[in-house]
Amino acid sequence: MLNLSPKNVYFFGNGSADGRTDMKHLLGGKGANLAEMTNLSIPVPPGFTITTEVCDAYYRNNKQYPKGLAEEIEQNLSRLEGLMGAKLGDANNPLLVSVRSGAAASMPGMMDTVLNLGLTPDAVKGLIKKTGNERFAWDAYRRFITMFGDVVMGLERHGFEEIIDRYKKKAQVKNDTELTAEQLKNIVEEFKTVYKKKTCESFPNDPKIQLQKAINAVFASWNNPRAVKYRQLYEIKGLLGTAVNVQSMVFGNMGDHSATGVCFTRNPSTGEDSLYGEYLLNAQGEDIVAGIRTPKSIDNLKDELPEVFQELFKEAQKLQFHFKDMQDIEFTIQENRLFILQTRNGKRTTQAAVKIAVDMVKEGLIDKKTAISRINPDELDRLLHPTFDPKVEKNIIAVGLPASPGAAVGKVVFSAEDAERLAEKREKVILVRKETSPEDIGGMHVSQGILTTRGGMTSHAAVVARGMGKCCVAGCGSLNVDYKKQIFTVNGRTVKRGDYISLDGSSGEVMLDQISTVEPSLSGDFAILMGWADEIRKLKVRTNADTPADAKKAREFGAEGIGLCRTEHMFFGENRIDSVRQMILSAPDVKKFRTEIAKFENKLTKLAGKNGDAVLDELQRVKKELKKPLELYESALEKLLPMQRRDFEQIFKEMDGFPVTIRLLDPPLHEFLPQEAHNQKVMAKQMRISLTEVESKVSALHELNPMLGHRGCRLGITFPEIYDMQVRAIIEAACNMKKKGIIVYPEIMLPIISAEQEFILLKESVHKVARDVMEKKSMQINYTVGTMIELPRAALIADKIAKHAEFFSFGTNDLTQMTFGFSRDDVGSFMPEYIEKGILENDPFRILDEDGAGELIKIGIIRGQTVRPDLKIGICGEHGGNPQTIAFCHKVGMNYVSCSPFRVPVARLAAAQAALRQPLSQTTV
Amino acid sequence: MLNLSPKNVYFFGNGSADGRTDMKHLLGGKGANLAEMTNLSIPVPPGFTITTEVCDAYYRNNKQYPKGLAEEIEQNLSRLEGLMGAKLGDANNPLLVSVRSGAAASMPGMMDTVLNLGLTPDAVKGLIKKTGNERFAWDAYRRFITMFGDVVMGLERHGFEEIIDRYKKKAQVKNDTELTAEQLKNIVEEFKTVYKKKTCESFPNDPKIQLQKAINAVFASWNNPRAVKYRQLYEIKGLLGTAVNVQSMVFGNMGDHSATGVCFTRNPSTGEDSLYGEYLLNAQGEDIVAGIRTPKSIDNLKDELPEVFQELFKEAQKLQFHFKDMQDIEFTIQENRLFILQTRNGKRTTQAAVKIAVDMVKEGLIDKKTAISRINPDELDRLLHPTFDPKVEKNIIAVGLPASPGAAVGKVVFSAEDAERLAEKREKVILVRKETSPEDIGGMHVSQGILTTRGGMTSHAAVVARGMGKCCVAGCGSLNVDYKKQIFTVNGRTVKRGDYISLDGSSGEVMLDQISTVEPSLSGDFAILMGWADEIRKLKVRTNADTPADAKKAREFGAEGIGLCRTEHMFFGENRIDSVRQMILSAPDVKKFRTEIAKFENKLTKLAGKNGDAVLDELQRVKKELKKPLELYESALEKLLPMQRRDFEQIFKEMDGFPVTIRLLDPPLHEFLPQEAHNQKVMAKQMRISLTEVESKVSALHELNPMLGHRGCRLGITFPEIYDMQVRAIIEAACNMKKKGIIVYPEIMLPIISAEQEFILLKESVHKVARDVMEKKSMQINYTVGTMIELPRAALIADKIAKHAEFFSFGTNDLTQMTFGFSRDDVGSFMPEYIEKGILENDPFRILDEDGAGELIKIGIIRGQTVRPDLKIGICGEHGGNPQTIAFCHKVGMNYVSCSPFRVPVARLAAAQAALRQPLSQTTV
Repeated sequence: MLNLSPKNVYFFGNGSADGRTDMKHLLGGKGANLAEMTNLSIPVPPGFTITTEVCDAYYRNNKQYPKGLAEEIEQNLSRLEGLMGAKLGDANNPLLVSVRSGAAASMPGMMDTVLNLGLTPDAVKGLIKKTGNERFAWDAYRRFITMFGDVVMGLERHGFEEIIDRYKKKAQVKNDTELTAEQLKNIVEEFKTVYKKKTCESFPNDPKIQLQKAINAVFASWNNPRAVKYRQLYEIKGLLGTAVNVQSMVFGNMGDHSATGVCFTRNPSTGEDSLYGEYLLNAQGEDIVAGIRTPKSIDNLKDELPEVFQELFKEAQKLQFHFKDMQDIEFTIQENRLFILQTRNGKRTTQAAVKIAVDMVKEGLIDKKTAISRINPDELDRLLHPTFDPKVEKNIIAVGLPASPGAAVGKVVFSAEDAERLAEKREKVILVRKETSPEDIGGMHVSQGILTTRGGMTSHAAVVARGMGKCCVAGCGSLNVDYKKQIFTVNGRTVKRGDYISLDGSSGEVMLDQISTVEPSLSGDFAILMGWADEIRKLKVRTNADTPADAKKAREFGAEGIGLCRTEHMFFGENRIDSVRQMILSAPDVKKFRTEIAKFENKLTKLAGKNGDAVLDELQRVKKELKKPLELYESALEKLLPMQRRDFEQIFKEMDGFPVTIRLLDPPLHEFLPQEAHNQKVMAKQMRISLTEVESKVSALHELNPMLGHRGCRLGITFPEIYDMQVRAIIEAACNMKKKGIIVYPEIMLPIISAEQEFILLKESVHKVARDVMEKKSMQINYTVGTMIELPRAALIADKIAKHAEFFSFGTNDLTQMTFGFSRDDVGSFMPEYIEKGILENDPFRILDEDGAGELIKIGIIRGQTVRPDLKIGICGEHGGNPQTIAFCHKVGMNYVSCSPFRVPVARLAAAQAALRQPLSQTTV
Repeated sequence: MLNLSPKNVYFFGNGSADGRTDMKHLLGGKGANLAEMTNLSIPVPPGFTITTEVCDAYYRNNKQYPKGLAEEIEQNLSRLEGLMGAKLGDANNPLLVSVRSGAAASMPGMMDTVLNLGLTPDAVKGLIKKTGNERFAWDAYRRFITMFGDVVMGLERHGFEEIIDRYKKKAQVKNDTELTAEQLKNIVEEFKTVYKKKTCESFPNDPKIQLQKAINAVFASWNNPRAVKYRQLYEIKGLLGTAVNVQSMVFGNMGDHSATGVCFTRNPSTGEDSLYGEYLLNAQGEDIVAGIRTPKSIDNLKDELPEVFQELFKEAQKLQFHFKDMQDIEFTIQENRLFILQTRNGKRTTQAAVKIAVDMVKEGLIDKKTAISRINPDELDRLLHPTFDPKVEKNIIAVGLPASPGAAVGKVVFSAEDAERLAEKREKVILVRKETSPEDIGGMHVSQGILTTRGGMTSHAAVVARGMGKCCVAGCGSLNVDYKKQIFTVNGRTVKRGDYISLDGSSGEVMLDQISTVEPSLSGDFAILMGWADEIRKLKVRTNADTPADAKKAREFGAEGIGLCRTEHMFFGENRIDSVRQMILSAPDVKKFRTEIAKFENKLTKLAGKNGDAVLDELQRVKKELKKPLELYESALEKLLPMQRRDFEQIFKEMDGFPVTIRLLDPPLHEFLPQEAHNQKVMAKQMRISLTEVESKVSALHELNPMLGHRGCRLGITFPEIYDMQVRAIIEAACNMKKKGIIVYPEIMLPIISAEQEFILLKESVHKVARDVMEKKSMQINYTVGTMIELPRAALIADKIAKHAEFFSFGTNDLTQMTFGFSRDDVGSFMPEYIEKGILENDPFRILDEDGAGELIKIGIIRGQTVRPDLKIGICGEHGGNPQTIAFCHKVGMNYVSCSPFRVPVARLAAAQAALRQPLSQTTV
């Protein structure tokens, strides 16, 4: 380093400052803004900032401060004293200062503020002299001791408050303000006694020691558990530490021409363009926070102190103009004189964020790109789902994973059947399950929300709920569900079937009782903002939609096609599941007999006529045995064909003019059979077969690791008729719709491809069936055949697959599972600990793991495009709706992302932000 | 191509030939050898060879021959006729020829031979004139019709044989040789009638048409199902097709100075250095094959035709010397004149192969490298395990996967307990299970062999059996096991508990009854050969061994350390499983309470003293609740510690001077709990807890995809005390053994690592415990800490992991599972079809999939060595014993392979062969 002794302290005051607003990383948000405001000639009390580098050095050097820091502080303090014409602890003209923490990101978890620092027995005399207000001086002193005790020494405020209460009771007054100077003086003495008792040391009478201790406390607060937790929770990373701001005090409590307050330059809740805020006359900042006195609306200031209000309005506008964003401003009025203590970009609701961004573009304050980058895409979700009334008190009994946003209220039920039963009676229900399975789809559909005790963000319940745009809280492990007793217990509390609960899918909170909800309404500003996003983004945004209703919803949200239509979800509809099950029951027999027949035919070839008769007889016998299951099998497929065709017709209609990627059957067959004894009985009865037969089929299809089992294209290889039926339905539907003038682009997608030959074989079958349909219909459909890339091997041999596949869709759910060796349904037992211990930064099922699955995606894209430069590439895993992942998809040059309907606006915005951050010319794999 | 009309036909005869032995690819093995022998002045009947390129062109050009072929055949035929002074079909001096197929690799699946081609009504007259032997001529004719009908036209021999039988009966004679010329002449006529009836055409009287049809038949046979199957079975690839050899006939059936026979230059069964073979006087080659007459040993020829025998011996030696390998020679003696019809490298038993290779080195015929390359490593297994007596007839009732070699005979039992019960009574048992689980280890240990109906080559049963060197047939899907009835059925046959069966672990055959076995004996030649292999190979060979007994066995087989010691297998021993279960039952409670305590402590910090008393009380309560499970947990770990230590001590002792890689606990905890209701009851009783408690723990640990679940280092992270106990046991054992003068190199291996932080955290714990032990013992142990690379992510982030890990061991079982998305226990439902349809060339659990898992290994090695050039790298998956995979490991520059004890010799040999094929300077990742 060139600079052997870096500058550790930055001064601000009297219209000029050492720092600037772009030095946030070094001075913290607060310090940088104080400097900036000073430079802008905003009336800011002068002071100095100790840098975040000092904090960093402090922790790295075993809690020792850098050499020379003390001298620097001393120098700046002298300068401050000089500027203010006052001295710390001076018995005539004492300087009082505030000490505040301030990191580059706002962190309520840290130590915040100590006011009135510098008061000592001498200084209090000086303050009395200076202000001529004895009561004020003693009041300031007792406040200082309380705050110092609490914030710096970690004492309970309670101990101090008790003393005041006693005095008030004795004096028979209600408010602190009614206490006399004498009483306050006595209180100060008692406070000091309490302080000594609790800390085993006297309250410091040396103001420099006070300052030193306060600075220490700020730096110590950087790593207190609350602050660490807060950074973890809000994913705040890469900060050096906190800065410390030492600033000369101004007093809002010097009478009725003094006040303290906060204001926003626009309404943070609606975005309306008017000064919004509150203040208290004759008070210090902490009085507003403490909530003892009710502050007044800022509008009243116009009447109470009209000139100061005008000045505040002017300075607020100046700040907003300067920072080009809505400002959150702390101010103090000391005897009619306005001081701005702090300004920062104001927090706001998503609704307000959208309105403010759009308004500011209209006002010429910011451009569209800035507007786009101001909105957190993840929060857009809130505009699309109902939310709980924030004013209502909630009785939170548990917190699970926020698996699918929304607010749901309903009666607890414990089975999908029960849900359907109650829903028929127009009851609102919440389906509570240990975990859900495809059998529960019907029940999930009629429920207001879903609550599960197992499984993560991409568990079955979570994925399906997001697809449905339905509220879901998943993996709520503290709940013990007892199906038999039809209750769940949580922390000693029991909730019965029929009891009302409320779920918050955005926070994961589970609450007792019915909590009133607020319906969302999409403003015109929202549409405008989305329009700007669409102009900027390079990635197309498609949706994962399995039903015409989902497809419709997604179109409303701006989806440009379907990236993943899971055909199997259609299999669970009424009238369908029976045919599906009939197919599954007969398929293995058909398979077995076909293998036998092939053997015989092989034998016949080998024998070349010798002893052929006996073999022929045997062949005849086998073919006869095959007849029954074959009929069942074929009739099941025949029944399914028109149903699937109808689904596709409607989906094509909804997606008129846009591509529709249809994935052929993916899950293992046993998912379509009931696993619970009761349901097996029902099925046996419905299908008129014995329970034993059902049981034996279920057992035969049982797999130890179904995620790694007989599924996806492996089914297509072993039971080719199923895929043939699906392809037939797709192409027939496309023909029928084309005839009606609908523009169709079917993209047929093969799942779980791991070998080149799988793709070749299945693609041949697809073409064969498609040709057959098109010939019969005398029509031509432009369809393509591509594949999911969801197994590591598929990514590794992408060059071989791309020889035959016209598009790749990265299935990042499975890719994440395989790359990590994580089962998304089983990670609950260790994932929370992994996140907590920092082993993983994020749940890789929520945000794409760029080092693992992402690395394979890069390999897959490079190898695939080497062979086929115009390969169409997208992502259809759950990650497709995650902004961070969308940025990755943009960077590696994908053509589109696909996500659940309600994430489409999120994805549009995130894609635009990604394009802003990294123009395509800079992208690379 | 320069040569527009390539040479399609190669002539040989009269001491010179167009071809050479190194033209096998073009002329087939037979054709190339006939050419070579001709050039060596071996007495070979002249003829010509139509190339394999013709076969290739024929199939590629829609079964049309290349232009000009007919003319070329015509020219060569004329040349042959000229050389022989005879003409095809000539009524005075007819040329007769044989037509044989012959590819570059021996393929019994194809059409083999048609002899005596050229016989027509005219030619038979000529033959009579020429030989003066009417009977011989008609006999040749009827033989020709039979062979032509069978081999060329696909008629049943049966139809012809019936006629001969009728004649013999009528003539009251026993042997064909007793039929008269007249009778044979009539037989020829009847044969022609049968021929016409079955083929709807007359038997061809034009010898050129006969030749054309025979050539067609040879080419057609290349793709008959049997031949295709054969190539598939023996993994014969990259051949163009078959060649056709047309060769002038010589006759071994021209009286008692004529004969036909085959001989080997050394004994193909023992390797003994003496001419070995058999012959028939007055016979044609097919008589030997047909087995109608019993041939005599070649030794008899010394007496019967001593001069010819001497000549045969001389020519055989010449051939063996020329080809530097044991020869399998077909010869014919025509009236005291010896003709060699064919020579090829002789097939031999593994035992003979070893002896011959070693002998030939001693004789100076070949060098050590050649000797090494002559032995098929996969077959070495056979020398180490008992085999079934090949002479005994077998009643094969089913064929499963040959999961672990050996021959086992015993009574059927259906549970591990039953196996142990019967074994105590010194009964030999075969354990038959749908699948095995770790609970079955005890029963597997006492069984002769294991038979399962589910699971593949790396299923639990297969892996454990191979580790034990025990015979196992896995995935035998045609068996239906009924545990309740204690029977299994297969193809309508029922086998009860207590019935004897026999298993062949090398072929996968399941046989009824007790079949006698032959014990192996390792010859001195074996040791010599292994010694040569050790000189040549670069890869070290370690073993996967979990017990001192395995370790001992492996050392005997030449293992240079342990590459994988699975600590969990030790957990199933008697006295141990109870402690393990106690640990598992208490661990979650301990975990839960610890989390609670951490929460309280966090709360206390936050409160900073405020209201602390209530929290402290609560903390006290939780700590009390924790007491019971904590005591159980800690006492379980304390009980396990000395047991594990003892195991490690013994293993270190067996591996004195060699490294021992110990993998810390890997499987999910539920594997240690009984899954079946009955066993759960037993456990509840043994542990004096309620059945409900057992059930609820089992249910709590249940995972949908345990392979992707809470296992490996994930357990180490969440239950650190378990790993700590294991590390303590390892280091204590190492200290204790070192004290006794044993040289120990413990390598502690962390399984299922997927993230850098996992490794960092766990490595810290390992060092902490190790330091503690070493301090207490005042000793220093040189141990290293490394990791399995068995998840795709681990390979992808190998650079990050290598910063901390001192060695990598590729766990290719899991790596294959994750890369393909295959569960090794569930692939049975589609893998056979995948192999059959050619989707996959090999079962990737048997031979490493180089495109998938292999690609990740390459990535892992490159990235790992970039960071740590001296990284020690090995493989410990089941693939470590597969020769093809070993070649890969050599190529990518690994340091060692590790495999089950019985595969160690295989690996030593395969590693040597790999080094011969690719010297290390040429290896590359």
